[in-house]
Amino acid sequence: MDALPKCDANYVALTPLTFVKRAASVYAARPSVVHDRVRFTWSQTYERCCRLASSLRSLNVTKNSVVSVLAPNVPALYEMHFGVPMAGAVLNTINTRLNADNVATILRHSEPKVFFVDWEYVPKVRDALKILIKSRGAGGEGADRAASFLPLVVVIDDINSPTGVRLGELEYEQLIRRGNPNFIPEELRDEWDPIALNYTSGTTSQPKGVVYSHRGAYLSTLSLILGWKMGTAPVYLWSLPMFHCNGWTFTWGIAACGGTNICIRNPTALDMYRNITEHKVTHMCCAPIIFNILLEAKPQERRPMNSTVEVLTGGAPPPAALLQKIELLGFHVTHAYGLTEATGPALVCEWQAQWNNLDPESRSKLKARQGVSILTLADVDVKNLETMESVPRDGKTMGEIVLRGSSIMKGYYKDPKATSNAFKDGWFLTGDVGVVHADGYLEIKDRSKDVIISGGENITSVELENVLYTHPRVLEAAVVAMPHPRWGESPCAFIALKTNTAGDSDKVDEAEIISYCRKNLPHYMVPKKVEFMQELPKTPTGKILKFLLRETAKNFIVPEEKAQNTPRSVVTTYVHHPEPQEQVVAMSRM
Amino acid sequence: MDALPKCDANYVALTPLTFVKRAASVYAARPSVVHDRVRFTWSQTYERCCRLASSLRSLNVTKNSVVSVLAPNVPALYEMHFGVPMAGAVLNTINTRLNADNVATILRHSEPKVFFVDWEYVPKVRDALKILIKSRGAGGEGADRAASFLPLVVVIDDINSPTGVRLGELEYEQLIRRGNPNFIPEELRDEWDPIALNYTSGTTSQPKGVVYSHRGAYLSTLSLILGWKMGTAPVYLWSLPMFHCNGWTFTWGIAACGGTNICIRNPTALDMYRNITEHKVTHMCCAPIIFNILLEAKPQERRPMNSTVEVLTGGAPPPAALLQKIELLGFHVTHAYGLTEATGPALVCEWQAQWNNLDPESRSKLKARQGVSILTLADVDVKNLETMESVPRDGKTMGEIVLRGSSIMKGYYKDPKATSNAFKDGWFLTGDVGVVHADGYLEIKDRSKDVIISGGENITSVELENVLYTHPRVLEAAVVAMPHPRWGESPCAFIALKTNTAGDSDKVDEAEIISYCRKNLPHYMVPKKVEFMQELPKTPTGKILKFLLRETAKNFIVPEEKAQNTPRSVVTTYVHHPEPQEQVVAMSRM
Repeated sequence: MDALPKCDANYVALTPLTFVKRAASVYAARPSVVHDRVRFTWSQTYERCCRLASSLRSLNVTKNSVVSVLAPNVPALYEMHFGVPMAGAVLNTINTRLNADNVATILRHSEPKVFFVDWEYVPKVRDALKILIKSRGAGGEGADRAASFLPLVVVIDDINSPTGVRLGELEYEQLIRRGNPNFIPEELRDEWDPIALNYTSGTTSQPKGVVYSHRGAYLSTLSLILGWKMGTAPVYLWSLPMFHCNGWTFTWGIAACGGTNICIRNPTALDMYRNITEHKVTHMCCAPIIFNILLEAKPQERRPMNSTVEVLTGGAPPPAALLQKIELLGFHVTHAYGLTEATGPALVCEWQAQWNNLDPESRSKLKARQGVSILTLADVDVKNLETMESVPRDGKTMGEIVLRGSSIMKGYYKDPKATSNAFKDGWFLTGDVGVVHADGYLEIKDRSKDVIISGGENITSVELENVLYTHPRVLEAAVVAMPHPRWGESPCAFIALKTNTAGDSDKVDEAEIISYCRKNLPHYMVPKKVEFMQELPKTPTGKILKFLLRETAKNFIVPEEKAQNTPRSVVTTYVHHPEPQEQVVAMSRM
Repeated sequence: MDALPKCDANYVALTPLTFVKRAASVYAARPSVVHDRVRFTWSQTYERCCRLASSLRSLNVTKNSVVSVLAPNVPALYEMHFGVPMAGAVLNTINTRLNADNVATILRHSEPKVFFVDWEYVPKVRDALKILIKSRGAGGEGADRAASFLPLVVVIDDINSPTGVRLGELEYEQLIRRGNPNFIPEELRDEWDPIALNYTSGTTSQPKGVVYSHRGAYLSTLSLILGWKMGTAPVYLWSLPMFHCNGWTFTWGIAACGGTNICIRNPTALDMYRNITEHKVTHMCCAPIIFNILLEAKPQERRPMNSTVEVLTGGAPPPAALLQKIELLGFHVTHAYGLTEATGPALVCEWQAQWNNLDPESRSKLKARQGVSILTLADVDVKNLETMESVPRDGKTMGEIVLRGSSIMKGYYKDPKATSNAFKDGWFLTGDVGVVHADGYLEIKDRSKDVIISGGENITSVELENVLYTHPRVLEAAVVAMPHPRWGESPCAFIALKTNTAGDSDKVDEAEIISYCRKNLPHYMVPKKVEFMQELPKTPTGKILKFLLRETAKNFIVPEEKAQNTPRSVVTTYVHHPEPQEQVVAMSRM
């Protein structure tokens, strides 16, 4: 074969920027972004992105500069997903649920040239900047030096903002107005160039900055619009924050499909129902918590659903009970699994037609599995990390879920050690423990740290929590390992109860929960202790802080009689059905 | 930004081979290939491809070897689309409609190590090999030398083959049987490596070998399954030859979707209808000629259609009349435009919901436009090749259609001059002339050479042919330029008539056709001469040989009275509405 070298006509860098350019040409007059009374078409959105990019250039933003933003799902944040990389820069969307301390940490680490701040978060950012200045001062450097290090702040006003919320001189719409509508984006020469920087919440450590390439973002986007069968012109409700892995890539994906972005500032029941019916929403993404918000809506907040809304959910396996309830309302749920490092969803529980014939409970169970790899992922596997061998497809042998493909992150920003630890032998290590079922579908059994080994049996907290959530009075549940004199570890449940609205007079105490678990679980899995809390401790993103609960549980002493009362069946299980491979795998993860 | 170098976990070469590996894992038990009584599942297909690849290795096939094949749409040809590149080799599918001379030319040029031949084409290949040996001998080299140059021939038997059709010792199923089912494909290090070599029919010159990269094939495949919204588990009927741009990439695409390939040896009406109903076909591709076959089916060949079949058509714009008839039968047509050099379809006439409200004729007209770029194409434009400026979006200014993106061919094999001529200023030149409508949709007006400039007006033969095809008695029509004493050129129509089955006694002669055109066309577009033929001359792929017709038309002399009788309106048009830009563009293409 000849060499046949690449040329500009047949080798063009893959980038999501082609999606918005194409949308402006192909879907020029179609609505692109809707937010209350604000409406744009795709040709307008493209022009606004060009204007934004040219203004950023005039603000000293150059190739690979970081541009940070702290904003809810407003049109400006959507536009930045194209406008910022069109200026050659890297978009850093910050989680709005973080506190001023966290925000300061991210700014210190990412060193943005420009920092867009929605009016609602001006006070928080004012505090964050103070912390930043103080810390620079404390570092022995002069205040001037510190100030020069601060990003240029640009406030985002919108139709809901009170007048006069300012932080510095600049406002987003000014940049748009003064920008050049005919700005020609610098041509991307290398698709490996960075497009986005997303900090993981990092509940136990300093946040880590995950860097995406244009190539990775492009391929992930294609996979997701394909795997979810979005078709053309979907109407997409922004119930998932765009700051979560760039809205699981749907920021770019909706442009690729020529769809319409329905932006909402907060995913309240009222705003979701109103927008769903008013704009005939076809698709939305969310964590399972949103199902609760929709289910618990007051009658005056509800709207009759005229057609099915496709929902992609992830972040946690949706409990079966919740799945069934939300689908009755008119939402059709697809379950996906992903992480920031995988540019959002990496596995999707692709539905198989023959499952339609199963009973609702079996269907929910199948749906709660994490599923199969998205199309552009080169491979996914569950491996024993000691040997790097694949686990058998038996639905029970656990191992670590590992991924490879061009949509995996480039690495962690300024953190070569963490980057190198994340990869092993050509695989990205997710840190999640799972199994592979006979049909090739993966199911997560736990975050590595959440495996409880009790009497040689692996107990996964997720499984136990799933049962606890089916109890009518349980609002929140988390299970961690507690030291046990006989079994090494045993499960300890932390529970927050719902307020008793049903007028139910039954008392819910430890005995009731344990008895409920006995009815619904193998005995060895039943928690040996149940601790009630008003609310479980969580990160600003809503992840339960299990490491805190683990610390607490370490100090619990299992009453001697309970230790002795442990049913013999557990021992029997252990003696007669040891599963050495499982045990080794699980222990290697502890 | 840090450099963050690529690693094996986050930068994996893009290749369609991942599709079949994934299908074997995710859709293991689903039917992959069906051909009469032959049935395979995806895990079987994957294993057979591994076996094929390992056997090819044992036959001295190595990285970048060419493996040729001459076969209809049988399972073996499908498997080669994965098995051959899994061996590191390049698949060269040869058009079965070529004659022995053409086949010999391709073999001489591509120098395959192995040549798979379906039993049906053994006689043709026997002749081709004789030609090859003779030509080598004639070149002054010994017969031994020539023989050593011949490819190793492997015959493909199937359940329909008469026994004893052999050419050499080897048979395809032998290679499968003796292959290693656990063969591990050599890892692709560079996605720019070649995967396929497809010769264009090249009616006027030596065939040109178009080379595809793994990257290009991968991206085209994603675009097409996305753009056509195939979903999961489509049932795909192979009415389009796989040797046409690898079945417009659907060879790879059906694996990507976990669909089922329904293989048929010949697209007869009976076989198509039977397979459509028996296997519940959801999708098929074809040239518009297949519509005629389906429409002209005898009653005993027809089957009632139980659900709509999605049809992607291309190769020529489907005449509106044909579109309306075929859709009434239960086929839903999408029109695409592409060329071998663009790895199949490059534009798809993406349907817009608001068009559903139009009358059938308007809908057909919109559908016959070539449409908008597929998602992975970086850009498409219509340009004045002199200035490389884009034409306005006015639906009338013509220019050459140019494309760029990673799914454009690497180039022509062993033909640096043709390769370099195909590209200009970062664009691939299609050689087709078109316009851009105000809504961004492209419409082809003609192959460059088919523009007729008459009295300063551009006449496109396609437009005229479209009208001719609406005449109830016209079976085939082709329009070319004829010299005209007054107007420079004028259109000359060549027509083959349908046999008169309706018992219609009307005589169809030149006067009748001209009068019909006068009723339906601006006068200046009316052919000045109509020539009737039994059948129009065509290439083995069914393309009308216009250059032959042009040669014939050169000798026609327009009768003086007709030249004078040309209505004044033409002159008026010329004088009062000159469109200099159109004229320049069109003339530059002649």
